[in-house]
Amino acid sequence: MDENHRDFLRLFHEFAAYGAIADGGVNRLAASAEDGAARDHLCAWLRAHSFDVQIDHVGNIYGIMEIAGALSAGTFYCGSHLDSQPTGGRYDGTLGVVSACHAALAVRCAADAGRLHSRYSHLVVVCWTGEEGARYQPSLLGSRVATGGMSARDALAIRDTNGVTLGDALRAIGYLGRDTPPPPDGYLELHIEQGAALEKAGCTIGIVTGCWGAGKLCIAITGAPSHTGPTPMAERRDALLAAAMIITNVHALARDALSVCHSSVAQIEVQPNSPNTVAASVRLWAELRSGDEAALAAMIAGLDEVLNDAALQTGCTLRIEHSETRAAVPFDPAALAGIEAALSDGDIPHMRLPTIAGHDAVRVQSVCPASLIFVPSQGGISHAPQEFTSDADMISGLDAMTYALLALLARERDELKREP
Amino acid sequence: MDENHRDFLRLFHEFAAYGAIADGGVNRLAASAEDGAARDHLCAWLRAHSFDVQIDHVGNIYGIMEIAGALSAGTFYCGSHLDSQPTGGRYDGTLGVVSACHAALAVRCAADAGRLHSRYSHLVVVCWTGEEGARYQPSLLGSRVATGGMSARDALAIRDTNGVTLGDALRAIGYLGRDTPPPPDGYLELHIEQGAALEKAGCTIGIVTGCWGAGKLCIAITGAPSHTGPTPMAERRDALLAAAMIITNVHALARDALSVCHSSVAQIEVQPNSPNTVAASVRLWAELRSGDEAALAAMIAGLDEVLNDAALQTGCTLRIEHSETRAAVPFDPAALAGIEAALSDGDIPHMRLPTIAGHDAVRVQSVCPASLIFVPSQGGISHAPQEFTSDADMISGLDAMTYALLALLARERDELKREP
Repeated sequence: MDENHRDFLRLFHEFAAYGAIADGGVNRLAASAEDGAARDHLCAWLRAHSFDVQIDHVGNIYGIMEIAGALSAGTFYCGSHLDSQPTGGRYDGTLGVVSACHAALAVRCAADAGRLHSRYSHLVVVCWTGEEGARYQPSLLGSRVATGGMSARDALAIRDTNGVTLGDALRAIGYLGRDTPPPPDGYLELHIEQGAALEKAGCTIGIVTGCWGAGKLCIAITGAPSHTGPTPMAERRDALLAAAMIITNVHALARDALSVCHSSVAQIEVQPNSPNTVAASVRLWAELRSGDEAALAAMIAGLDEVLNDAALQTGCTLRIEHSETRAAVPFDPAALAGIEAALSDGDIPHMRLPTIAGHDAVRVQSVCPASLIFVPSQGGISHAPQEFTSDADMISGLDAMTYALLALLARERDELKREP
Repeated sequence: MDENHRDFLRLFHEFAAYGAIADGGVNRLAASAEDGAARDHLCAWLRAHSFDVQIDHVGNIYGIMEIAGALSAGTFYCGSHLDSQPTGGRYDGTLGVVSACHAALAVRCAADAGRLHSRYSHLVVVCWTGEEGARYQPSLLGSRVATGGMSARDALAIRDTNGVTLGDALRAIGYLGRDTPPPPDGYLELHIEQGAALEKAGCTIGIVTGCWGAGKLCIAITGAPSHTGPTPMAERRDALLAAAMIITNVHALARDALSVCHSSVAQIEVQPNSPNTVAASVRLWAELRSGDEAALAAMIAGLDEVLNDAALQTGCTLRIEHSETRAAVPFDPAALAGIEAALSDGDIPHMRLPTIAGHDAVRVQSVCPASLIFVPSQGGISHAPQEFTSDADMISGLDAMTYALLALLARERDELKREP
């Protein structure tokens, strides 16, 4: 381990203090005070290392660095996110931001020494706002706005379950910016796998081929409040009973699918949520995922029947209040091949694998070639304090990312254009 | 309608302003600021009408009145509660408190005029703390403590879902008292039916024979947080899925019972409750009710299988964190017969019926003869803003209660002793 690796690990573990919870995890919801403190720490580091720090209209942070001796103009982004789940781990997102910082230092060093002839004039370390979708839905919010998938105005108006808008939350922590940095011409992200494929294969570096498709839905159920005691069972319109039927049947959609599918309901809001009053209304957040387009479509179609059945059995009214379908996204194949070649040149073992979880790279791929590299998650555990990636694996990830970044910056831009 | 009736209705409808919500309902959770304001209004009325107002260690309010010319010592209670469900109606509880106030005035008038020769020296208008069990569980909390079913110390330590103890909440509204008024030797409560039996029978006054038995349980489910995306379905321990299975199966327990049973799950707490993290833990509040002791016991026994099945299917750990079984309670038959005789003497039509919902009278029956009178709830609706009882029916209720109270006060005490 050299001095750079030690600095990288020190910076990485410093972030775990912001929103620290029991068992080594973090609770650093998007635009919370804890997120604000972590952002301050990042900005201080970027400024101390002579990056030009800009904040855009949805709080995305950009640490901009000019690359010495660049052969042509262009902007390459590298980064991830600092927000977490309520009971999140310290690796998810943070690893990508901190490794982007240190990979950028390596790029600067190589360019200043004349060892890199970059086709991009600027490198941006980016920290996206609200990747998790825990406090503010939808997920991938900052990268979504930056890539034109939603207006900043719409994003800032989104409310958390306490009614606080993203705009107000960002203002409160000092990250409601006005900068408009140059858009990305290329993107690279390092992330923990959040699955166990690398661990099972005994491989430390994964090059991600693409992302599973997903359907994310918010279902509103309207029943009627009544006394849980005397109200005859047949006269109840129990929104929580309807919700329970939907939860078990959404689970069954994945279980009964013909190819590998995942499904979940993990958030629920109940009114009035009193033990003695039949639930008057419920909101559920469901997710359906598959790498197989037809299987995903079948699950989404099956949901209709699930909802109709629950409505019929309980007398409740059901409505899909919000729904978003994300088709499976392949990452740029030329960039992928370029990374593989660079890692092979550097004698770094690697393998291809898909990602099931969404990442900011998926959004960025919609506007420019994007690449995603994985390092192992012990036991595949993620979105939990027990999430763990060893220091050695993180260093391997940083090294792989640095190799990949230098190779991508040096390539002819045309080679990296997204295939039609 | 005479002047007394008009005063009674005016006082009754004044209370609907405290915690008023849309559609004419109230949100007046136990020991909330709104409950505090309603309590202040009651105490002001009691003091203005020369009652000695006392507050005990759990915030129960006692308006004590000496009965002129009483033949012997003893204390008779009359009242109900002012707290409500989060989306409650204005009639539940409040009608019993306000009618107790006005029936007490009638008693005073009769005694002062020498028309009543009371066997009790004191009449107490009582307002019990936390009958609903919405903010603080268990329900019937104030009457439970006053009748020795729980220590005041334990009751004051109970926390709401925000972690606020009953003690702190009562202190905040100025109702953490220190008085120890004389215990009840007899009790009478007027309440809305919260069912539709009176309406269906076309009868305005119901004399309640007894209360259904009930099992109330708090079930704690422990799963494990993990990413809703990549975590393989077979490796998830989804606490919300286990909860959903329990909710549907608790519903089935009543549906499949051999005699009339009711069951419900109406409150749920989920952690971390994020759309992208499999639920790590859930708490559920379930209720099982029946007038048939064997059927209730069968449902309670059946719950074990429901929990085992959910644990087996989801890999979660399940634990009954709190459970309370209340056997079916018959009200004092001698008092019931006395009330029936008084109403027949007054040419007031009435019928017998059971109560499915619990009431403070059920708790008080454990220490002295207690009686409960019902007036109709339109459509049987309760615990909802649409709860409605007409002014005419409320006046009939007040009149019936006054007849009943005068009769109970005048009877030989021995006639009203609870049968063994």
